[in-house]
Amino acid sequence: MKPLFASLLAFLIVAELAAQPYQANWESLDQREVPQWWRDAKFGIFIHWGPYSVPAYAPVDEVEGIYEKYAEHYENRLKGGNKLFTDYHRATYGEHFTYSDFAPMFNAEHFDAAKWADLFKRAGARYVVLTSKHHDGFCLWPSRYSPKWNSMEIGANRDLAGELTQAVRDAGLHMGFYYSLLEWSHPLYKKETIEQWVDTYMIPQMKELVNAYRPEVLFSDGEWDYTSETLKSADFLAWLYNESPVKETVVVNDRWGKETRSKHGGYYTTEYDLVHNDKGIGDKATHPWEESRGIGTSYGYNQFETTAHYFSSKQLVDLLIDKVSNGGNLLLNVGPRANGLIPVIMEQRLLDIGRWLQVNGEAIYGTRAWLERPAAEAQPDVYYTRKGNDLYVICKQWPTAPLRVPGVKRPLSVSLLGSPVAVKAKAGGGGLTITPPAVTPATMPCEHAWVFKLEAVLE
Amino acid sequence: MKPLFASLLAFLIVAELAAQPYQANWESLDQREVPQWWRDAKFGIFIHWGPYSVPAYAPVDEVEGIYEKYAEHYENRLKGGNKLFTDYHRATYGEHFTYSDFAPMFNAEHFDAAKWADLFKRAGARYVVLTSKHHDGFCLWPSRYSPKWNSMEIGANRDLAGELTQAVRDAGLHMGFYYSLLEWSHPLYKKETIEQWVDTYMIPQMKELVNAYRPEVLFSDGEWDYTSETLKSADFLAWLYNESPVKETVVVNDRWGKETRSKHGGYYTTEYDLVHNDKGIGDKATHPWEESRGIGTSYGYNQFETTAHYFSSKQLVDLLIDKVSNGGNLLLNVGPRANGLIPVIMEQRLLDIGRWLQVNGEAIYGTRAWLERPAAEAQPDVYYTRKGNDLYVICKQWPTAPLRVPGVKRPLSVSLLGSPVAVKAKAGGGGLTITPPAVTPATMPCEHAWVFKLEAVLE
Amino acid sequence: MKPLFASLLAFLIVAELAAQPYQANWESLDQREVPQWWRDAKFGIFIHWGPYSVPAYAPVDEVEGIYEKYAEHYENRLKGGNKLFTDYHRATYGEHFTYSDFAPMFNAEHFDAAKWADLFKRAGARYVVLTSKHHDGFCLWPSRYSPKWNSMEIGANRDLAGELTQAVRDAGLHMGFYYSLLEWSHPLYKKETIEQWVDTYMIPQMKELVNAYRPEVLFSDGEWDYTSETLKSADFLAWLYNESPVKETVVVNDRWGKETRSKHGGYYTTEYDLVHNDKGIGDKATHPWEESRGIGTSYGYNQFETTAHYFSSKQLVDLLIDKVSNGGNLLLNVGPRANGLIPVIMEQRLLDIGRWLQVNGEAIYGTRAWLERPAAEAQPDVYYTRKGNDLYVICKQWPTAPLRVPGVKRPLSVSLLGSPVAVKAKAGGGGLTITPPAVTPATMPCEHAWVFKLEAVLE
Amino acid sequence: MKPLFASLLAFLIVAELAAQPYQANWESLDQREVPQWWRDAKFGIFIHWGPYSVPAYAPVDEVEGIYEKYAEHYENRLKGGNKLFTDYHRATYGEHFTYSDFAPMFNAEHFDAAKWADLFKRAGARYVVLTSKHHDGFCLWPSRYSPKWNSMEIGANRDLAGELTQAVRDAGLHMGFYYSLLEWSHPLYKKETIEQWVDTYMIPQMKELVNAYRPEVLFSDGEWDYTSETLKSADFLAWLYNESPVKETVVVNDRWGKETRSKHGGYYTTEYDLVHNDKGIGDKATHPWEESRGIGTSYGYNQFETTAHYFSSKQLVDLLIDKVSNGGNLLLNVGPRANGLIPVIMEQRLLDIGRWLQVNGEAIYGTRAWLERPAAEAQPDVYYTRKGNDLYVICKQWPTAPLRVPGVKRPLSVSLLGSPVAVKAKAGGGGLTITPPAVTPATMPCEHAWVFKLEAVLE
Repeated sequence: MKPLFASLLAFLIVAELAAQPYQANWESLDQREVPQWWRDAKFGIFIHWGPYSVPAYAPVDEVEGIYEKYAEHYENRLKGGNKLFTDYHRATYGEHFTYSDFAPMFNAEHFDAAKWADLFKRAGARYVVLTSKHHDGFCLWPSRYSPKWNSMEIGANRDLAGELTQAVRDAGLHMGFYYSLLEWSHPLYKKETIEQWVDTYMIPQMKELVNAYRPEVLFSDGEWDYTSETLKSADFLAWLYNESPVKETVVVNDRWGKETRSKHGGYYTTEYDLVHNDKGIGDKATHPWEESRGIGTSYGYNQFETTAHYFSSKQLVDLLIDKVSNGGNLLLNVGPRANGLIPVIMEQRLLDIGRWLQVNGEAIYGTRAWLERPAAEAQPDVYYTRKGNDLYVICKQWPTAPLRVPGVKRPLSVSLLGSPVAVKAKAGGGGLTITPPAVTPATMPCEHAWVFKLEAVLE
Repeated sequence: MKPLFASLLAFLIVAELAAQPYQANWESLDQREVPQWWRDAKFGIFIHWGPYSVPAYAPVDEVEGIYEKYAEHYENRLKGGNKLFTDYHRATYGEHFTYSDFAPMFNAEHFDAAKWADLFKRAGARYVVLTSKHHDGFCLWPSRYSPKWNSMEIGANRDLAGELTQAVRDAGLHMGFYYSLLEWSHPLYKKETIEQWVDTYMIPQMKELVNAYRPEVLFSDGEWDYTSETLKSADFLAWLYNESPVKETVVVNDRWGKETRSKHGGYYTTEYDLVHNDKGIGDKATHPWEESRGIGTSYGYNQFETTAHYFSSKQLVDLLIDKVSNGGNLLLNVGPRANGLIPVIMEQRLLDIGRWLQVNGEAIYGTRAWLERPAAEAQPDVYYTRKGNDLYVICKQWPTAPLRVPGVKRPLSVSLLGSPVAVKAKAGGGGLTITPPAVTPATMPCEHAWVFKLEAVLE
Repeated sequence: MKPLFASLLAFLIVAELAAQPYQANWESLDQREVPQWWRDAKFGIFIHWGPYSVPAYAPVDEVEGIYEKYAEHYENRLKGGNKLFTDYHRATYGEHFTYSDFAPMFNAEHFDAAKWADLFKRAGARYVVLTSKHHDGFCLWPSRYSPKWNSMEIGANRDLAGELTQAVRDAGLHMGFYYSLLEWSHPLYKKETIEQWVDTYMIPQMKELVNAYRPEVLFSDGEWDYTSETLKSADFLAWLYNESPVKETVVVNDRWGKETRSKHGGYYTTEYDLVHNDKGIGDKATHPWEESRGIGTSYGYNQFETTAHYFSSKQLVDLLIDKVSNGGNLLLNVGPRANGLIPVIMEQRLLDIGRWLQVNGEAIYGTRAWLERPAAEAQPDVYYTRKGNDLYVICKQWPTAPLRVPGVKRPLSVSLLGSPVAVKAKAGGGGLTITPPAVTPATMPCEHAWVFKLEAVLE
Repeated sequence: MKPLFASLLAFLIVAELAAQPYQANWESLDQREVPQWWRDAKFGIFIHWGPYSVPAYAPVDEVEGIYEKYAEHYENRLKGGNKLFTDYHRATYGEHFTYSDFAPMFNAEHFDAAKWADLFKRAGARYVVLTSKHHDGFCLWPSRYSPKWNSMEIGANRDLAGELTQAVRDAGLHMGFYYSLLEWSHPLYKKETIEQWVDTYMIPQMKELVNAYRPEVLFSDGEWDYTSETLKSADFLAWLYNESPVKETVVVNDRWGKETRSKHGGYYTTEYDLVHNDKGIGDKATHPWEESRGIGTSYGYNQFETTAHYFSSKQLVDLLIDKVSNGGNLLLNVGPRANGLIPVIMEQRLLDIGRWLQVNGEAIYGTRAWLERPAAEAQPDVYYTRKGNDLYVICKQWPTAPLRVPGVKRPLSVSLLGSPVAVKAKAGGGGLTITPPAVTPATMPCEHAWVFKLEAVLE
């Protein structure tokens, strides 16, 4: 080889490696940091919406394990012969009505993407994740890999994913997609043809989605049947991180093969506090993570849920505090009706969270868990987040006694977020003791969960 | 005439008069007191439910007068050519879809009367008033006067009125019916045949309803086209008061002819604060009266209403206080979906009221307006009810200064309902001055509207 | 009484009697002749069309008596718990679907009255009788006595009776209505309220129909539960004959009370050859009569009928010959689909009849039975009609031997209708002997049933 | 190479060639004879059935070229913006109803495969060809290449192709499939991805169909956009002829690429007498060919067709005579309703053909065109078929003069099929002269088209 040519080749290889810094293996891919925007966002909206929103059914009275509660699993419950579902289905739709027959009834006739986006923004959410395709394979965009079984071809006759993406961005929020790696009833999705599934369907379809809409979150799911090697997830992620149009900003989760949860990929995930890994994501988790769950007991809209099943606004604020104070994000799910209207109870809950964040948002957005806090002195109903060297002391209940914050130095100032009232605090004994100020119902800054801000108390 | 016979005859006439004390004229009928149970009940649930619950549409964005907001007026808006309605109807149901075509879709397939009654009871309501028949003429019971156009013959295939009546009574509440004297599309309902309408249809049908279900409230409506003389309302009421199976306990309202509102009949009515009479029902009304309105802006379910249209729980508690402190009842309307499910936002609101009444109910039930209060010293956000010689001072906002109650003597005791905290009060200057006690978010007895009870302060 | 006044009074009474020649009793009413137009018309079209045209079901495979075959009896079969119907209904429409729920599906969206009328005219029919209201009470016109349960208010949203009436008249045919005196599910139709039924519903509704559309045939039905006295039929007919707008031309049948068939009213009726009277209408009936039946085994459209159930064109021509040669009319029924289209097989049959009548109509229209024919010499497949002193000899099968016509004198001429071929006949032996001419498939005047015309052979 | 090894190799190559006699090129493939069973069958039933059977619409009144008449083209007409279709669609189904929304309404709830097969057998058909998949891509079998868009997954919930295949075979008929090589709305069906279309979709799907149901006819269609090379048709046919389970008996047509009609493949095709090739298939065609057309003007059911559009039974018999006497087959199309019922008019037509074939079938089945007939002496309405050295003289009209058959020798016998009557014929002048026998309407063997059989008149 001529020296000049060798040099040029070496240069090109280096340039290519620079441009393509990630290799298609977990060791390399796991090096990538979860982008800052997502770590600071803390609160996102999940949306489960599809043909299952038509029956909008899951049993609510029976206690048969949490999975029965998911209305979006309707197709699979029918196929599995779950008697609660099959009885309901027969009584409501008759003997010969297939799951696919719901598709033309998934009409979205009153769907207004701008109204949705506005609501999510008012709820204080910083990102939105839509089920582009759930386990039933129905696509909310005109996917060429799913002819006839997408919202443009049957039912709504609209690019639902596209409309929402535009509106969410117009509202200044980040847009992302949920995508199911499995499909309950696709003929290729089985052991004998899984490679064909991955090569000719799943990966091309994910790329189509990424190229068409440039999502900044890709929440994969349905990864439990096969290893990430079989699913060629590392190849896909290498493409996503190196070449895709969202390579700089995209965030992914940890569901890329049956062995990957809480181990590989981007952020770790839990749902309904369920962790799919013996490691657990608990106190002081150091890896970015996210809890997702519904406002009620289902992700997809379940018209039979009542206030007995919906979390109250206080419970939801507490949930957000729990997750964020432990270093996590909350991806709170909304299940719209098939006609595109969001049930008012969900709207109410979202706005209540938004009102709380209006006052207390600085204790949430951009914060991190206070990992160094002395565990021994934990008090019930008291939670912490930190931002720089400021500390936020979040009380789910109004303290009826002086509040002890251990392991901090004397603060620059102490205040009650949202309130002009002066807050007294006394340093000593390796910490700080805050005397709850006299606020009455007339002077409370918010209805639930009050936050004391301690400026410059951390090293 | 033989003396004995004459005596006997005189006795019989007297006995008959005793048995039939009311004559068929307003002078006589208006003598009847509104039964005590209703005057003490204070809070009832109104239900608008019918074929209009299928489209569940009224425009919410446009400001075109309050009447456009009523989803139960759908049929009439179509007939009247209201462009908002006709455009919506055509786009959603096509060119050739008549209002009557909704009837088979009014299926009530998930209607559970016991669940409804339980909810109303938990809301603290003491009575329930169902639209047995609204202006569209559709009967929720198998009326022989409305063959094919009732819930037993088409659509639900059930006696909805009967099922709810049973469940409401089982829950220990009083049951009543709304009944429309007019029908938009009945061929007899017109000037030329109005007498036939009254004699062969309207009065027989009301009697059928009363005899079959024995309602304790009869909320008539649609009285504005004809005088009570034409409608023969006095004849009907004489029957109702003298002979009907509910003659002792039934309560009626004031809508019996175009001249009767706030003048004749039983209690007077307002809706959405609208009084159909120049007299007005305001401060210190001495005649029993009732305000009805929806939780949102419509009576019948309007699926397009959002939190922007629904009253908040605080607004609803305040509304109840307004009406009761002025001597009125509140008949709060619920608009169930056509499938029989009550929207969760409505359930949430009802339960919030119920929680407030759990603490503060004694300031509402069985009370009367404090008519003698010195008007000059009215304070904003402070309302009064009385029961015997006790006085309830209801503060919609937590008082930030000492609270002055004029014109009362020293009370036996002063307390904050729902709270064990001691309340200081000082008599003097022709009244009482209450110092609001120090309650914090942790010790508040309720979230909205706090009540101070003053025992034995009135003459 | 003064002579002048007495005279005047007598004059007025006479004038009144002249104007009102019929009294409300059978003796008087039965005097009225069935109008000539109808006696000459011979062939009419019956139409059964209503909500039962939606399910369009009656069992065809099972042999359970002819009445099971009537698709228009669907509602009653369901009510009666006929297992064939209830099973079919449940499997097809589900548990909670009522008969009334069919009404919005009775849409008539492709109904074109002019096309119907044109078809009936091409079939050779001279009058049309539409079920204005069948036993289900559903009215094909906007009857004020049946609010909501008529084609203007629900489903089609059109005055079907009115549109057809206009079109039939425009085509030069006579228009008539079928009307059911009973209704299976009307609350007034029962023993206790039968007088109210008659006075406030049935008779006013029939008058409404007559006044609005001026039908020239009134085919009443459903008369079997009560006597004509109870149904006040004589009163109605006296009005119809004396005062109604169609008093000169209207034709009625014999179904006016459970004792009236083949006894009172206008023409006598049979259906599917069933005579509801022990007298029978057979050979040489002298009173005008009419057979009605479907082209298939049902009146209302039964979508499960096949060619196994439909009469062939030959059978229909033979049927017409049977009835007319015996002095009757044929009212052949058509069962349109709910969408207003007439099944093509029915159209085909009607046009085939029309083609036969084009050639042989003079042997049908305006004829009478040849009552004087010598019964002893009847030959199979040979039928007669007469007109004036002409005789028509109708051969259902082509005669393979000389044809003997007894009891006639030498004719002026003998011909084969539709054919130029000369026909030889020889008088003698108290009659005529016709030699069938040599026609081949190429020279046959028609496909079925050939007619020899004998001019001036009768006295 | 060692001699022994070379011999062995040579043997194997020869054996393989013997087993796989056809190469993937037209020169080789076109050598294959159309199997005898099909050449003898002469009369088959075509069935167009799919989601287009739900709207069952094509304009019938307007004259805009024959292609508008095809109800099965509904989807494409909508896409193409054909105003007749788009107006109809909007008026009937509303603004937002997609073609795919018809799929759940294609329910086949009354489909009885055995009844269909029995009817086709009684019609005298010897084979049946069902649209396994038309241009809309909807599969009547559960194709793994068309998930969700097949009759098992949506709508009918049945393997319609499988059920019919079984029933047709049970009836002793041959079963075949129509298959469209193109799909109007499949995303792969376009220039850029046509190879992927062919390799991953079209050919695998055809093989799936062949392997699963073993059809004996494969009627491909939709070949006009690409050459057979692009479509790799020769590869497929080589597989079909060499390896498939039906390699011995399967018959294919000539639609395998835009250049192939009337040139390559199996039998040639015409439809509605339209020949897609300048060569024409006319008189004395020597290559096997087949005409397909509907009984009416559409293949797919068009509910707006009337007798004006349906061929009469006589026209259909004449059509069959035309085609068979010219060496072709007739594939007569039936368009069932979406609910699985065959319109009775079609049943009637089929049975009429069957009755004619019952008498005259020997002049049709197993015959060939009489290619050697002297063209010069053609007589109108006289057609010929031959079988061995017998000749059938088919008269569409009954001959009114002696019938001249040129170019034949004196027959062994002359007879009128279906009739015992003796037929006189006289040889001479290079032919035969038949005197039509005297048959009357009573002795005609059939209603249309009479056949004289001349035994042993050909060399």
